[in-house]
Amino acid sequence: MEEVKVSKAVISRLPRYYRYLEELLNNGVERISSQELSEMMHVTASQIRQDLNHFGGFGQQGYGYRVENLHDEIGKILGIDRITHLILIGAGNLGQALANYTNYRRRGFCIEAIFDKDPAKIGTEVYKIPVRDINELETYIAEHPVDIATITIPKEQAVLVADRLVKAGVKAIWNFAHTDLAVPEDVAVENVHLSESLMHLSYKLKAREEEKKR
Amino acid sequence: MEEVKVSKAVISRLPRYYRYLEELLNNGVERISSQELSEMMHVTASQIRQDLNHFGGFGQQGYGYRVENLHDEIGKILGIDRITHLILIGAGNLGQALANYTNYRRRGFCIEAIFDKDPAKIGTEVYKIPVRDINELETYIAEHPVDIATITIPKEQAVLVADRLVKAGVKAIWNFAHTDLAVPEDVAVENVHLSESLMHLSYKLKAREEEKKR
Repeated sequence: MEEVKVSKAVISRLPRYYRYLEELLNNGVERISSQELSEMMHVTASQIRQDLNHFGGFGQQGYGYRVENLHDEIGKILGIDRITHLILIGAGNLGQALANYTNYRRRGFCIEAIFDKDPAKIGTEVYKIPVRDINELETYIAEHPVDIATITIPKEQAVLVADRLVKAGVKAIWNFAHTDLAVPEDVAVENVHLSESLMHLSYKLKAREEEKKR
Repeated sequence: MEEVKVSKAVISRLPRYYRYLEELLNNGVERISSQELSEMMHVTASQIRQDLNHFGGFGQQGYGYRVENLHDEIGKILGIDRITHLILIGAGNLGQALANYTNYRRRGFCIEAIFDKDPAKIGTEVYKIPVRDINELETYIAEHPVDIATITIPKEQAVLVADRLVKAGVKAIWNFAHTDLAVPEDVAVENVHLSESLMHLSYKLKAREEEKKR
């Protein structure tokens, strides 16, 4: 699979395919046609065939896709066929919410430490994950594998912590702070800007209201 | 501004522009050129001009954009120049985290009630927002304005609650459950699928690792 070149647009759709395939797999479904998948996912069957044909030979005319095979191949492409070590920066509500997403564990995502600067939180546990002193961040990273650091602290501190993470060698940041982080090219960043998502919903709501008035 | 037709791609970028303009405004910046904005936002200046020229006449050659004006106009398009009434379904960690995003208030987003089925939570307050019995959902909606309902409960329950919200007349759903909700055309949905976001980051990390090996 290493040689496959897939467009960004297709890649961005893979996690959603994976989610549906996982559900089918859990429900014991062995194969599915692009037409059935199309109805479930509200995507055209031709879009599905175009997207999934990148991975060659899974869809067979009159037979459909083998669910487990496709699920596993997409999992490999997404890098979730292995253990990914996560740390969380910030033991606030959002950090705690993320720590509690146990379903990530079955995809190999393991949150192994949470860092905070609040003395009242340091030394406690959040869903059995120890909360450590943010001052120990560099020492921890030097001694433990850390694939992804999740940032859930206010933006001013987030920028400083991101710099520390990069210097300590972390190569992927899942950023929930309301800011865009400036990191070197070889560091992957995925932003979850909740306020932007809410503004986008606000726009859709308003657009529908105006549509109605006409 | 009502007549302006703007593409989906531009719309999806407006919240980010709004965030930067808000920061500039807070820092007392009165005007900014597309070039300066380009450097801040890591977007080409021509992209910025193309995007913002949809709103006609704000960018002036040699003068730049008037920050406040552009901020306010984009705010209007996004529907955040008014009060938006929100309710939250689910008083768990994620619900609490969202309740605590006080900065949404200054954009007119007011969370006015949280609903949960847990008797231990019902009757308490989360950041001064009352937690109500989920059984009171329909009565509450009939008696109070509700523009947006935020769903932060597990997927099986989320599907049922979404149906109830739609029947009760709610026209916008901010969905954090790991599922796609089937709602009528006139109901706006914005999904925040955290697990998909994490898988996407996992992909980027893996792609960088493979790049390095070559």
